[in-house]
Amino acid sequence: MYEPLLKHLARFIRITESEREILISNLRYKKVDKKGYLLKQGQICSGNFFVLSGCVRMFTITANGTEQIVQFGITGWWISDYHSFENNVPSDYYIQAVEDSEIAIITRSVCDDLFQQIPQLNNYFRKMMQRAYVASLKKIELLLCTSAEDRFHQFTTDFPEFVQRIPQYMLASFLGFTPEFLSMLRAKNKSVNNS
Amino acid sequence: MYEPLLKHLARFIRITESEREILISNLRYKKVDKKGYLLKQGQICSGNFFVLSGCVRMFTITANGTEQIVQFGITGWWISDYHSFENNVPSDYYIQAVEDSEIAIITRSVCDDLFQQIPQLNNYFRKMMQRAYVASLKKIELLLCTSAEDRFHQFTTDFPEFVQRIPQYMLASFLGFTPEFLSMLRAKNKSVNNS
Repeated sequence: MYEPLLKHLARFIRITESEREILISNLRYKKVDKKGYLLKQGQICSGNFFVLSGCVRMFTITANGTEQIVQFGITGWWISDYHSFENNVPSDYYIQAVEDSEIAIITRSVCDDLFQQIPQLNNYFRKMMQRAYVASLKKIELLLCTSAEDRFHQFTTDFPEFVQRIPQYMLASFLGFTPEFLSMLRAKNKSVNNS
Repeated sequence: MYEPLLKHLARFIRITESEREILISNLRYKKVDKKGYLLKQGQICSGNFFVLSGCVRMFTITANGTEQIVQFGITGWWISDYHSFENNVPSDYYIQAVEDSEIAIITRSVCDDLFQQIPQLNNYFRKMMQRAYVASLKKIELLLCTSAEDRFHQFTTDFPEFVQRIPQYMLASFLGFTPEFLSMLRAKNKSVNNS
């Protein structure tokens, strides 16, 4: 059941058979139905979540009461509020399933022990955090440097399958525009492609 | 000369005296004059840079020819184009000194060996990358959810010293508005504080 995670791990680090057993025995498996939550605002984030299948989103509620999505997680991605997780403070975020999803969890209660027992996990998560950081810097650059229209095109080119998969209003929130503006862009795009 | 780095390290991990010696013997020290470069667009980023003193900025040149700052590094921060560094590909970014700066460098040529010899460095950099990722997610949220004016106030509240230190046009670029708009906000702020 943890095969997607073990395969992912093998792309970055090598662990022994006994380390593999230790890892598996420390993971928690969770099925989350669509719209189910892994974390709610105000809770202390107690897990680092690996998406085995499905899709989840991380969002906050802004001052004016709207949802702002800051991150998605699809198969092969780790997602968590690392600030809350690491510092044991209440989270500003929600993590919610966009589709029925299967999640492997490293809980805070086993985390330190696990890193002690499998030091290579530090190497793995260093790489994971680095990739996430690089991706978020790229997003900052997109937000600051490109028009909403260019941002939309860039995103649909980079992640075509993803754009088909998630609801429109979520994509709009993630890219920082209104659902109406996104509909207009999609219609324009369609008419260009059909012409 | 590496004291700020060794102190920083000690806040997160413990290394032995001999590991400390190994680390120091593998670091490179560089003085960069104000406006000097650690990296230019098109080069492969060959170092992970720790700011011992001074201040550097990481920026790209956008399609319309303007500079877009995506990151600053002040004393105690690591900065690099990790995508270029890790994947051996040309960088989209420049890293330039904003002030005369002193830098400790882990070059790509010693990096793998160093992590092998001091495995705890994986733990340290996992935490560094995690903090950088958390900060950049927070910035994405600020860019998407808050008005330029609120963004400015948030930033000046969180980093008052920093706002005094860097040139206005750089702060404007980092926060995503024009220098003129920033001047207007500062003038408005001043008149509110004086009234």
